[in-house]
Amino acid sequence: MILASDNWAGASPKIASAIAEAASGFRPAYGGDDISATVEALFCDVFEREVKVFIVATGTAANALAVSAFGGPGGVVLCHEDAHIATDEAGAVAFFGGGLTFATLAGEGGRIAPDALAARLAGFPAGFVHHGQPRVLSVTNLTEWGQTYAPDEVAALAAVAHERGLAVHMDGARFAGAVASLDVAPADITWRAGVDVLSFGGTKNGCLAAEAVVFFDPEKARDFAYARQRAGHGLSKAWVAATQFRAYLDNGHWLELARHANRAGAEIARIVEATPDARLALTPAANQVFARLSANAEVRLEGAGVRFYRWGEPDADGTVTVRLVTSFMTSEADLAVFRAAMLG
Amino acid sequence: MILASDNWAGASPKIASAIAEAASGFRPAYGGDDISATVEALFCDVFEREVKVFIVATGTAANALAVSAFGGPGGVVLCHEDAHIATDEAGAVAFFGGGLTFATLAGEGGRIAPDALAARLAGFPAGFVHHGQPRVLSVTNLTEWGQTYAPDEVAALAAVAHERGLAVHMDGARFAGAVASLDVAPADITWRAGVDVLSFGGTKNGCLAAEAVVFFDPEKARDFAYARQRAGHGLSKAWVAATQFRAYLDNGHWLELARHANRAGAEIARIVEATPDARLALTPAANQVFARLSANAEVRLEGAGVRFYRWGEPDADGTVTVRLVTSFMTSEADLAVFRAAMLG
Amino acid sequence: MILASDNWAGASPKIASAIAEAASGFRPAYGGDDISATVEALFCDVFEREVKVFIVATGTAANALAVSAFGGPGGVVLCHEDAHIATDEAGAVAFFGGGLTFATLAGEGGRIAPDALAARLAGFPAGFVHHGQPRVLSVTNLTEWGQTYAPDEVAALAAVAHERGLAVHMDGARFAGAVASLDVAPADITWRAGVDVLSFGGTKNGCLAAEAVVFFDPEKARDFAYARQRAGHGLSKAWVAATQFRAYLDNGHWLELARHANRAGAEIARIVEATPDARLALTPAANQVFARLSANAEVRLEGAGVRFYRWGEPDADGTVTVRLVTSFMTSEADLAVFRAAMLG
Amino acid sequence: MILASDNWAGASPKIASAIAEAASGFRPAYGGDDISATVEALFCDVFEREVKVFIVATGTAANALAVSAFGGPGGVVLCHEDAHIATDEAGAVAFFGGGLTFATLAGEGGRIAPDALAARLAGFPAGFVHHGQPRVLSVTNLTEWGQTYAPDEVAALAAVAHERGLAVHMDGARFAGAVASLDVAPADITWRAGVDVLSFGGTKNGCLAAEAVVFFDPEKARDFAYARQRAGHGLSKAWVAATQFRAYLDNGHWLELARHANRAGAEIARIVEATPDARLALTPAANQVFARLSANAEVRLEGAGVRFYRWGEPDADGTVTVRLVTSFMTSEADLAVFRAAMLG
Repeated sequence: MILASDNWAGASPKIASAIAEAASGFRPAYGGDDISATVEALFCDVFEREVKVFIVATGTAANALAVSAFGGPGGVVLCHEDAHIATDEAGAVAFFGGGLTFATLAGEGGRIAPDALAARLAGFPAGFVHHGQPRVLSVTNLTEWGQTYAPDEVAALAAVAHERGLAVHMDGARFAGAVASLDVAPADITWRAGVDVLSFGGTKNGCLAAEAVVFFDPEKARDFAYARQRAGHGLSKAWVAATQFRAYLDNGHWLELARHANRAGAEIARIVEATPDARLALTPAANQVFARLSANAEVRLEGAGVRFYRWGEPDADGTVTVRLVTSFMTSEADLAVFRAAMLG
Repeated sequence: MILASDNWAGASPKIASAIAEAASGFRPAYGGDDISATVEALFCDVFEREVKVFIVATGTAANALAVSAFGGPGGVVLCHEDAHIATDEAGAVAFFGGGLTFATLAGEGGRIAPDALAARLAGFPAGFVHHGQPRVLSVTNLTEWGQTYAPDEVAALAAVAHERGLAVHMDGARFAGAVASLDVAPADITWRAGVDVLSFGGTKNGCLAAEAVVFFDPEKARDFAYARQRAGHGLSKAWVAATQFRAYLDNGHWLELARHANRAGAEIARIVEATPDARLALTPAANQVFARLSANAEVRLEGAGVRFYRWGEPDADGTVTVRLVTSFMTSEADLAVFRAAMLG
Repeated sequence: MILASDNWAGASPKIASAIAEAASGFRPAYGGDDISATVEALFCDVFEREVKVFIVATGTAANALAVSAFGGPGGVVLCHEDAHIATDEAGAVAFFGGGLTFATLAGEGGRIAPDALAARLAGFPAGFVHHGQPRVLSVTNLTEWGQTYAPDEVAALAAVAHERGLAVHMDGARFAGAVASLDVAPADITWRAGVDVLSFGGTKNGCLAAEAVVFFDPEKARDFAYARQRAGHGLSKAWVAATQFRAYLDNGHWLELARHANRAGAEIARIVEATPDARLALTPAANQVFARLSANAEVRLEGAGVRFYRWGEPDADGTVTVRLVTSFMTSEADLAVFRAAMLG
Repeated sequence: MILASDNWAGASPKIASAIAEAASGFRPAYGGDDISATVEALFCDVFEREVKVFIVATGTAANALAVSAFGGPGGVVLCHEDAHIATDEAGAVAFFGGGLTFATLAGEGGRIAPDALAARLAGFPAGFVHHGQPRVLSVTNLTEWGQTYAPDEVAALAAVAHERGLAVHMDGARFAGAVASLDVAPADITWRAGVDVLSFGGTKNGCLAAEAVVFFDPEKARDFAYARQRAGHGLSKAWVAATQFRAYLDNGHWLELARHANRAGAEIARIVEATPDARLALTPAANQVFARLSANAEVRLEGAGVRFYRWGEPDADGTVTVRLVTSFMTSEADLAVFRAAMLG
């Protein structure tokens, strides 16, 4: 049973079929095809406004290209200290952005608080060249700790950022999970709350390799096609990714997949809570559950063939924090394995 | 009928099926999976030696990462003036390489001559910092003009390059076509002839999005995994690309596909030669045919629904050079359409 | 006698004294000092308008920072094939610009013609991402071949560039020489003719290490202080360079120095013309004289201790092109040495 | 009275004279001159071994070029959280290094402890591409908090770093102050203790704009001249900086200047200690004194015209930390002003 990460799951059958079907004929390269032509309109529907959409194959590319589009010389990116862009992308943002640096913030559950943001920004007096200049606030929703930002929470952060002239990026590698968890309109936690650009993830929720950079102000997207091509992220058979998004967005499929994963996450959480030698490290909002396990509980899970990652080192008594991630593929049978291992 | 480019063709059915099949289950992310584990061995077989292989989704990524791995401060890349890396990749090599620049060379059919290379290198005296320092020779095989370099021709260029301390990169976006055309062992036009790193293309010959950077000296590949990740080119579901290569390399499938495309190219060439108001601009070696068409011939092709690109502007009398590219998908029916349009 | 380059000459005594004088006390760092505060106003006087000025220590820094300020992803810089930025700066523009590439143009005397520029730009269709996007035209005035662009010539080029949305950069490493030669107002060959940003050189004309980037639209300079600092080009004792410019611009000193160099250049040219086995390769406009020397004439110059550079390799009969550069320091005694060596 | 920073002081008269004297004649450009030729030998004497030396005009350039010479794709630089390279150089290291990122460490007095370093490195498992790869340890000596690392302390850190394959960089913006304070041979806190490359500062201690990057293994310096030129840091009149270093290193002048500054720093510290409403925040080792002042003490200093910087915000009761920096120019009269303001 796989709780290692949601990117260990293959593809939703609907999405896999869409690729196979599209692959049988000829299509213009570099996005000149019929499928690519329709995808932007689907995103406009999802976000209830005109958007500009650029598809790439990885989340790191989506984030690095999106953030660096709002960077600039000496630019500083504000984000949580556990943000994927700061810790797990091998310097991609700094590389794409010509030397962007990070100013990171602590915060429970991977979340940044508006007053902490304001205080950090105060450390960068306007025009003081040595420290560089804050340019982008990046928030992850769903966060790296499986928490959400609700619309008003995004708005509060964006207000602080915009007042200082920063752009607001949302890393939505697990955007579907956040939308499904909050049960809000996608617009409500993005542009209506002040988000300028979104990394809209598909890969962790049923696609194979499909991430989209969504600009809510088309004017800001003017140079982006060049940035994507210069970075080698313009797929020649662009329809391979576009067809994934067409199937993903069709008829709410993306939210169905996310709701499935979230329900499985909730069940994992319930089982953890019911287990005498385990407890939740944090109340999960979606498909990422952080639990504190006794050494024995960890051994039981491993013995049952459950795959997961430790999050940090164990305590002296062997208690350890683990991350348990469900996905659109997590089945009832999987959950039964977990339940049996935990509760006996 | 599509002669616009070989990247307009979808996927070989065997390759499309491989994706669909692999997509149905869970697999470790970032190359820890069973499929990725087998692919490097397949490449070792193809090249009859130990190689290090890194898969990415685009040819631009493969080229830019490969070339920049051998770059360095002030580095200069020697290549043909029509090389894709110099003209068609939006500055990717310069971007990835921290400011690499190009010194380009003319040459018939997209081919560089050893003496022209030597003469150009003489313009960069060792240690003269202002001009930068030549670091990489990049040759394209199959060339951008559909020509090949035979093993001894590659070796002659590599000898000049190595004498000056340059690494030799081969852009093999259409490598299969060159191997099939020359009917040589892949090793013969690469490492045995002095090539240090190869961009091994799959996308133009039946894959969907699969390109491999092949290092013939594993030691030189030491930092490459970091470079790929920093550039956002490490697919989380790495097996999506790996499975394409597994099917592609299996049982010589890649050369079958290329031979099919080359045969179609040869037929296109024969038809052009037989057409009174058209002629070959260059004798083609594989699947790219450059033809000189009268204005009338061009109109006839367009009228028949044949898609192709002009290569430059027409002469005063309307004669124009066009590029006609066949692929693994070009059918007898396609060829019949072309024949009818040309010969009536 | 030194005709190797104008950057072989030390400092004008007035400028050297200014440094020594300023060095004796305390002054705020990073441009907060009294001298730095006055320099921008001096530049405003010179250019008869509001300008933003950023001082750096080298011409390569001035050019690379100025050009890259107008670059962007996939950006292409149009310039002459002999432009210093393209041939002699070790890839600085590409490095600073995150992978800017060059599209170079031929042209007599290092000069670009408007129709050649227009034709080259036509090769970059708007929105065609693969080729990148032209962003900057860079012209050198005085050119690398010692020629000038007059106001209407600059204006004609700028008109072509602006129509395609390019910014216009002028490499004025020898700007003083051009202004003195043309006997025009500095404004006339810069902003009045459409130049957006100027590298205003001091080092080759009496300063020790002082180059200024002059923005004619202050709004465009908004991020420049960060770009300069990120590149390590913000001198902590900024007044060291500022005091050079204060002395340089004071009371027309810069043009006096340039007129001296130009007069010496004219005398060198007259002597070449009078020498039976030498001739001018090009009619010089200022302090750079390109001459064709017989093997014997070259030997005579070397024998007299004259230092100069060959410009390319000699012909079969030993005739060679040489560059002879005068400076503000070239004395009557120097000219006498040259005269004696050439005319005997 | 200036205690704002040591880069507010002009030049040592000996150094200012050296520039004026050198400026009067012609000299080959780009380091081909007689002065530049002698400087490397002087550095070899100072460090009692063969070294390769590259002079630049700013400390940011020295640091960014030195660190990035040992960087690489995905590279991570370990340093103190208050290190100048991480906080005050506008992203220069990240920019020069193609996206290098920082992993910073806390530590009293700007100093890193070996066990803290080892623990931090443990968070970067070898080959785990997502986090990037530690490549360089950078220590500042004299630290940003005016403390020193003694030879054995440097050696302990370097041992940890080298075991993990990192290079060791020392930011010696105030190297002279550290050497003078520790009273050791320069070799003892550099290469003998494991330092691979040193930013050797002159500007803060009597030079005008002269910093040197010193490589202790000449082989590692092979590409550096290109890196410097590509960054626009190769001065054409290289002798302007070289002559400063010749005078600086001559006959121990650099250590005399540093000892003067350190003695003034010690006197500042003594006065602070004697002041009832002030105390030292940290025992200073050289010319940087960090003091805790009451609001009243701060007002007295300001009233006496003493210039200094606050280090952070005041407490609720107005107590504030300030940085007081002496220099080679701090005079007895200056100290008397400070004494009077503090002690009345």
